[in-house]
Amino acid sequence: MSFIIFTNHYQLLHFLFFLIITITPSSLAQSQHNQFCVAGIGYGESTCGTSSSSSSNKLLIKGGTVVNAHHQQIADVYVEDGIIVAVNPTIAVGDDVYVIDATGKFVMPGGIDPHTHLEMEFMNTVAVDDFFSGQAAALAGGTTMHIDFVIPTNGSLTAGFEAYEKKAKKSCMDYGFHMAITKWDETVSREMELMVKEKGINSFKFFMAYKGSLMISDELLLEGFKKCKSLGALAMVHAENGDAVYEGQKKMIELGITGPEGHALSRPAVLEGEATARAIRLADFVNTPLYVVHVMSIDAMEEVAKARKSGQRVIGEPVLSGLALDDSWLWHPDFDTAAKYVMSPPIRKQGHDKALQAALSTGVLQLVGTDHCVFNSTQKAFGIDDFRKIPNGVNGIEERMRVVWDIMVESGQISVTDYVRLTSTECARIFNIYPKKGAILPGSDADIIILNPNSSFDITAKSHHSRVDTNVYEGRKGKVSTFIVSLVQMVYCTARTSIKS
Amino acid sequence: MSFIIFTNHYQLLHFLFFLIITITPSSLAQSQHNQFCVAGIGYGESTCGTSSSSSSNKLLIKGGTVVNAHHQQIADVYVEDGIIVAVNPTIAVGDDVYVIDATGKFVMPGGIDPHTHLEMEFMNTVAVDDFFSGQAAALAGGTTMHIDFVIPTNGSLTAGFEAYEKKAKKSCMDYGFHMAITKWDETVSREMELMVKEKGINSFKFFMAYKGSLMISDELLLEGFKKCKSLGALAMVHAENGDAVYEGQKKMIELGITGPEGHALSRPAVLEGEATARAIRLADFVNTPLYVVHVMSIDAMEEVAKARKSGQRVIGEPVLSGLALDDSWLWHPDFDTAAKYVMSPPIRKQGHDKALQAALSTGVLQLVGTDHCVFNSTQKAFGIDDFRKIPNGVNGIEERMRVVWDIMVESGQISVTDYVRLTSTECARIFNIYPKKGAILPGSDADIIILNPNSSFDITAKSHHSRVDTNVYEGRKGKVSTFIVSLVQMVYCTARTSIKS
Amino acid sequence: MSFIIFTNHYQLLHFLFFLIITITPSSLAQSQHNQFCVAGIGYGESTCGTSSSSSSNKLLIKGGTVVNAHHQQIADVYVEDGIIVAVNPTIAVGDDVYVIDATGKFVMPGGIDPHTHLEMEFMNTVAVDDFFSGQAAALAGGTTMHIDFVIPTNGSLTAGFEAYEKKAKKSCMDYGFHMAITKWDETVSREMELMVKEKGINSFKFFMAYKGSLMISDELLLEGFKKCKSLGALAMVHAENGDAVYEGQKKMIELGITGPEGHALSRPAVLEGEATARAIRLADFVNTPLYVVHVMSIDAMEEVAKARKSGQRVIGEPVLSGLALDDSWLWHPDFDTAAKYVMSPPIRKQGHDKALQAALSTGVLQLVGTDHCVFNSTQKAFGIDDFRKIPNGVNGIEERMRVVWDIMVESGQISVTDYVRLTSTECARIFNIYPKKGAILPGSDADIIILNPNSSFDITAKSHHSRVDTNVYEGRKGKVSTFIVSLVQMVYCTARTSIKS
Amino acid sequence: MSFIIFTNHYQLLHFLFFLIITITPSSLAQSQHNQFCVAGIGYGESTCGTSSSSSSNKLLIKGGTVVNAHHQQIADVYVEDGIIVAVNPTIAVGDDVYVIDATGKFVMPGGIDPHTHLEMEFMNTVAVDDFFSGQAAALAGGTTMHIDFVIPTNGSLTAGFEAYEKKAKKSCMDYGFHMAITKWDETVSREMELMVKEKGINSFKFFMAYKGSLMISDELLLEGFKKCKSLGALAMVHAENGDAVYEGQKKMIELGITGPEGHALSRPAVLEGEATARAIRLADFVNTPLYVVHVMSIDAMEEVAKARKSGQRVIGEPVLSGLALDDSWLWHPDFDTAAKYVMSPPIRKQGHDKALQAALSTGVLQLVGTDHCVFNSTQKAFGIDDFRKIPNGVNGIEERMRVVWDIMVESGQISVTDYVRLTSTECARIFNIYPKKGAILPGSDADIIILNPNSSFDITAKSHHSRVDTNVYEGRKGKVSTFIVSLVQMVYCTARTSIKS
Repeated sequence: MSFIIFTNHYQLLHFLFFLIITITPSSLAQSQHNQFCVAGIGYGESTCGTSSSSSSNKLLIKGGTVVNAHHQQIADVYVEDGIIVAVNPTIAVGDDVYVIDATGKFVMPGGIDPHTHLEMEFMNTVAVDDFFSGQAAALAGGTTMHIDFVIPTNGSLTAGFEAYEKKAKKSCMDYGFHMAITKWDETVSREMELMVKEKGINSFKFFMAYKGSLMISDELLLEGFKKCKSLGALAMVHAENGDAVYEGQKKMIELGITGPEGHALSRPAVLEGEATARAIRLADFVNTPLYVVHVMSIDAMEEVAKARKSGQRVIGEPVLSGLALDDSWLWHPDFDTAAKYVMSPPIRKQGHDKALQAALSTGVLQLVGTDHCVFNSTQKAFGIDDFRKIPNGVNGIEERMRVVWDIMVESGQISVTDYVRLTSTECARIFNIYPKKGAILPGSDADIIILNPNSSFDITAKSHHSRVDTNVYEGRKGKVSTFIVSLVQMVYCTARTSIKS
Repeated sequence: MSFIIFTNHYQLLHFLFFLIITITPSSLAQSQHNQFCVAGIGYGESTCGTSSSSSSNKLLIKGGTVVNAHHQQIADVYVEDGIIVAVNPTIAVGDDVYVIDATGKFVMPGGIDPHTHLEMEFMNTVAVDDFFSGQAAALAGGTTMHIDFVIPTNGSLTAGFEAYEKKAKKSCMDYGFHMAITKWDETVSREMELMVKEKGINSFKFFMAYKGSLMISDELLLEGFKKCKSLGALAMVHAENGDAVYEGQKKMIELGITGPEGHALSRPAVLEGEATARAIRLADFVNTPLYVVHVMSIDAMEEVAKARKSGQRVIGEPVLSGLALDDSWLWHPDFDTAAKYVMSPPIRKQGHDKALQAALSTGVLQLVGTDHCVFNSTQKAFGIDDFRKIPNGVNGIEERMRVVWDIMVESGQISVTDYVRLTSTECARIFNIYPKKGAILPGSDADIIILNPNSSFDITAKSHHSRVDTNVYEGRKGKVSTFIVSLVQMVYCTARTSIKS
Repeated sequence: MSFIIFTNHYQLLHFLFFLIITITPSSLAQSQHNQFCVAGIGYGESTCGTSSSSSSNKLLIKGGTVVNAHHQQIADVYVEDGIIVAVNPTIAVGDDVYVIDATGKFVMPGGIDPHTHLEMEFMNTVAVDDFFSGQAAALAGGTTMHIDFVIPTNGSLTAGFEAYEKKAKKSCMDYGFHMAITKWDETVSREMELMVKEKGINSFKFFMAYKGSLMISDELLLEGFKKCKSLGALAMVHAENGDAVYEGQKKMIELGITGPEGHALSRPAVLEGEATARAIRLADFVNTPLYVVHVMSIDAMEEVAKARKSGQRVIGEPVLSGLALDDSWLWHPDFDTAAKYVMSPPIRKQGHDKALQAALSTGVLQLVGTDHCVFNSTQKAFGIDDFRKIPNGVNGIEERMRVVWDIMVESGQISVTDYVRLTSTECARIFNIYPKKGAILPGSDADIIILNPNSSFDITAKSHHSRVDTNVYEGRKGKVSTFIVSLVQMVYCTARTSIKS
Repeated sequence: MSFIIFTNHYQLLHFLFFLIITITPSSLAQSQHNQFCVAGIGYGESTCGTSSSSSSNKLLIKGGTVVNAHHQQIADVYVEDGIIVAVNPTIAVGDDVYVIDATGKFVMPGGIDPHTHLEMEFMNTVAVDDFFSGQAAALAGGTTMHIDFVIPTNGSLTAGFEAYEKKAKKSCMDYGFHMAITKWDETVSREMELMVKEKGINSFKFFMAYKGSLMISDELLLEGFKKCKSLGALAMVHAENGDAVYEGQKKMIELGITGPEGHALSRPAVLEGEATARAIRLADFVNTPLYVVHVMSIDAMEEVAKARKSGQRVIGEPVLSGLALDDSWLWHPDFDTAAKYVMSPPIRKQGHDKALQAALSTGVLQLVGTDHCVFNSTQKAFGIDDFRKIPNGVNGIEERMRVVWDIMVESGQISVTDYVRLTSTECARIFNIYPKKGAILPGSDADIIILNPNSSFDITAKSHHSRVDTNVYEGRKGKVSTFIVSLVQMVYCTARTSIKS
């Protein structure tokens, strides 16, 4: 990692401190009147160290190529109090304005990761990145907002929301919430309405997998879809046939296949294709839009493509691991190495990755997430004798922006404006926070990154900012791109001594 | 209807009486040793009037074009004791042989209907065609065998089988049994094994629709598929998403749509496509062959085609109503007229029929059934205020052979050998009774029909042989074909006074 | 048609006169340095009446909903000298600024029609709309730019270009040029380079139909694709199998089918699907992007969809007639009525229209053209005894914006921002004139329309602005939308007495 | 190779001599009256050593499993004078009958290879297997008939036919002829009629590749399809886009890629898919059936599948090399090794093979050919500096039966009856020689093979019977199957000293 001015992480944080301004909740109030209002955009506690010195709140980014999804141009960007005030070819400013020279670099809206799980309680343990360390990783990687999933507490949406509000107090950047629906009754139905109307949640995820815990039946899925439709909220699905996965897992264990490769073998792509087809057709039946999270396979992608060809409103979200990796790692003889690649749906065989990239390049798939949900080796080791006990999840929140640049832009598959669209703008549009987020426009939040296409990166757990002790992109190098977060909009909490213990 | 020698039904029965020979159970025993042994081929009680006069058991069918699925040739067919003895260009016989001149006509194996429901208890009533009247209709239409579905009695396969054995005592021709599986527990699992090993059942149907009665969950479907696989039995599915159908029905009623058109609107093709896709992929996951009954829509057909293209063993059975009708009748202002077209999955919009014909012509679909399950107008009227109470079912067992000829052969889409394949031979092969059935070969049962391509038919409830008081093909005329049953192999029970009261 | 201020066409023109400013060629020069530079953006002779009074060149459009493809917001738009200067929620101006109140209306970039043929010499006659009358129709319908096709003169690109420059002197709005390639030799190859480098042409169309006149072989198509690739120009195809069309035409005449229905029968959708598949795969082989003009059928659309799913860069352009009409008119007993629907590829059977709309709504197809190329009834009558002699072409340049609104926005298939994208922005992007065109942004040309969603339209040849004496949308009414051109950027040529004689 | 009785090739020939009977031309005359009459079934000169001793012409094959495409059963097969007389469970014969014990083995109709090129003049050389050595190889491999392609002589069908009649005088088994059409004029059209009516040709192949030599344009293809339709003959295509292949070849040479890998790179699967799509749609337009020879890629197979799903009559013929090999060999550093895999369309990347097998297993593709056309290493070496000069062609006529058994039956993808269908029966049906060929039925020719599923094979050029000095299946072993030709029907020409010099 290199920065224009500063060269290490602590300096980065210092720099951020120097510039940041708290966004007031009122600035987001307007969005709640929209049909698809944003899922509870939040922010950290304002008691931690925000700057209020008027001298620090003016910034000019000079001479870069400003890239929006709709257009790129060489221009200056002027920021006051964390809001973009002007984007013009030449902006003259006074001495009280901090000036950054971005000549030869791209000035872009910060990445928005639509799919994260910070401090998630899952499989009898807790993901090690919380809202501070996960966000620090995000910022280090050029992502300035993420949307996490509130998991209900014992089925209660309200209790779940409160728990996540508490978790999110550690935040050092903006975030939003989707909400998972894991059971169904009248209370849940009423709470969904409450969440939309009072908490700004506008997207609900249903699990077609994780039998016995998160999975719900078709009957409840239909109820959920109908409720989403009536509330103007967006239905999302984790699409795998949970009954069949359960069967597959039993069979693998019966066959004596207990290692991480059993994870891939027990839930093949056909089960993801099946559930994706089912969710899409049920959404068609209910006549409500659908967002398919983590499209990992050709099977699922083709269902999305087929539905879209017929005019149905279906959004397909590939995640970084599906785009950039293949499942060969799961056969690695070293358990620790293999186990770090365990996530669901599984990373697929070679070929799926390229097909997902192709579909992403032409708009068949629309945006890129990560499903960042990380567990240390000691946690992954819970499943050393039984792959079913390996906590599911991989990292990605820090790597997404640079690896997507590498595999999609450097490879010639997409343009730089496309890159902004699928790492930031499309997410902002879908979840109704555009153009506050996802754009470099007057009035937009100053979530700006500067991308240097003539630098380099080298990913390793040794230097990454996540708390997890491994990295599924370990050793990956990119020849030409480096990200620099020039500005974020949020609080830096001085209380925290270190993001990595 | 016209016959070579006799011209009305009573004469037909008389003629049959003149020729028939009881097939002994032992002649079928061999098939039970096959992996896919036939589902309990049965026969009527031998106490009714079989002929044993030796003078009557020799027959020569002279000069016709003998058509098998694999070949057609002009030849004589010689029959003794209900078994085909020889098929040769010229066969000389003595005076004791009854000779039928088939010059200019096609001599074919009798039709086999893979999908019927005689005397079925369903939706709080009973289908009006029992094993006598339904079979009489079949014989009048050129079908000499059918396979019915045993419905378990309160979940008991054994009790269900016994009940159907009793129903089938009225039989006047050969039949076989599939069995429906409507719940799942250890007893059912054990009974399945019993049915295969002791009762000759080799195919089990699972209902993905009829929520609250016949429908089973994916979990049980997987159990069922696995059990079929282990027993070497063939899994069959009624493929509609029952949860969604239930939703659709509620919604129609809420909207005030209570007429028969609500039936079509509540369970659109997308729900058939969904369930077909699901069943196929779960069968792929379990790695067992699958038979999809009544493929009614392009949506379902395309799933069958896609699976077959990838090498998966999936059989798709369109039924006559799906091939020859469209759903416009369900909007007919006269309830009685509209209600007679109510079956599930519903008859689809124009376009689906032609697409199913095309797929049938090239082997994407493999054989034609009827789902013959008939209810009188008084029974259909149960649903006059609520389409959900209209007993589901249409006729077809009598019309199948002639209407398939009309729409497929006369239209130039298939050859005469193809016709034999898809109305008879393929069914015999799939259910493991070939070449005893489905062929005109030495050693085959003498289930022979003579088809006159230069005749005519005119379908009407007034003259059909089913007991039902309506006909979904009412008024349909065919320019060129008439069927003649020249010979059947089974008992004519003199005790029955009339098949139509 | 109604206007905010003025109510008839002459007043419109007067109004335009009042506001317009000549765009200087230099303002476009920059685009020629781009790889995909715009095809010779032109303008009318500056000798006709442009205004230079400084008092007339300031305009404020107040209070409307400003719609760009990437965002819509309530804002004021301030224009000076034909260029948009500012777009802000509230703009205060002095007395010298002309103010239009757009409250409750949409303020949009004017439509851009990517596909027109004005004053085209074709089939031994000339299209009746020239660059004045065609553009007047365009303006009346909310389209402020179009891209026409230069047809080489006796194979010479240079001579063709000069001829079209001459034709375009009548222009009263901006236009661009694609160029058709109708034969191939070294001279053509060299001239292509000249066109790109000196004339700003960046797109070349190849005809796979019109055997004997415009059609070229696969060999030449490949040469053309390679040349486009080397020049960074975009290859376009008219995709029909010309050899087969020729056969089809002969066959129809042999069968005695000489009426307009013979046009449809002689060139079925399968031939469009074939050529589309061929062009796409040859473009894949050469590895160059492809633009398929007038995608008229499901067959062609599915080829586009398939290619895009695999990551290939293919653009599919449906035209208004394909989206909004079906071929039943070609069977109309009145020749004049039927003949006006003759275009190539033909308008297809019902079903294709809806499928194309669906594909357009989800981005499988990208923008809407018209192929506006109009012939009077007397010209169409050349083919009264032989459909092959009916000049091919339909109107649309005036109707496109309102009919697309009606079938796509009013029907709920797309949003208002989508509407701007597919009628204007996407075209500007593809042909490299964005954001000068296709956007309401500071610095963009002030090609602005105001759309009133609470008005009405009623299309008829009696009142339309094209010179053609018929209209394929005759009698079509829209309940809710009317367009108003509030401002165009170009010259009004006083010399012209009337656009309709 | 092992034989029941004899163990080497010379003994095989001796054995054949012992049993064979010349088929008289009259026995084939009947087929010429059929619409799709067989392409000139021929036979060798009767002057060579046929046996006429009455003692040798009776044969009983006892106790084997007789397999037809429609049925298999344990039965005896009795043969007299080269014709099957009876197939019955038990046949008692006298002492003058030669008896072969086939217990535990399969008795099948001999293989029929629909696609060979013996002694073909091609690419300035001549294929080394002539009608004697090629047929000897065929017989050694269990194939008892093949259909070769007559290539016109300087465009003359008649001259070409005469030349091939002469070549075929060396024959030692039955063969048939398709005919290639390589140019088009009135003479060719008239000659086609002559060929069908007087020479029994019923299938004509058109080349969409080999630009400058065999390739014809779409215009001529349409003429050819129309002529085939009018004659009731079957149109066949070699489907590759010849113009693009030519371009691809030029490009490879320009890039300096002159080795055998350039062959694969210059004509990728997309060009086969393109031409297949084109031929299928043009055949649809003309409304005539189509036979696609050597379907080598997923691209082509999917076009066949799509057409068939819509009801179009398209036959897809994969060849052995496409089913069993992949293109990695073309990158082999040893030219001789790589060059032997050069054929057109090229053998494809891994993945295509399995997909073609899957499609074959479910009837999406219908039969298996070889395109056997062999050149020695010295001939292949013509292209040592330029892959374009490597004579195209691979062996397969000897290996087809055993390798298909290995990859399709042993792998569990098809049944033994399916095996007979796709190696023999389907070919006989398509080319109208069934049931004379392709069946073990009374009246069929006694082209019988005995297949031992418990043997082994080991393919090597050292011991194969073709004259070619390499083998593309070199070193391939099969665990479980061996073929034995028990009987062929044709002449053994004593004049020939050796089939391998």
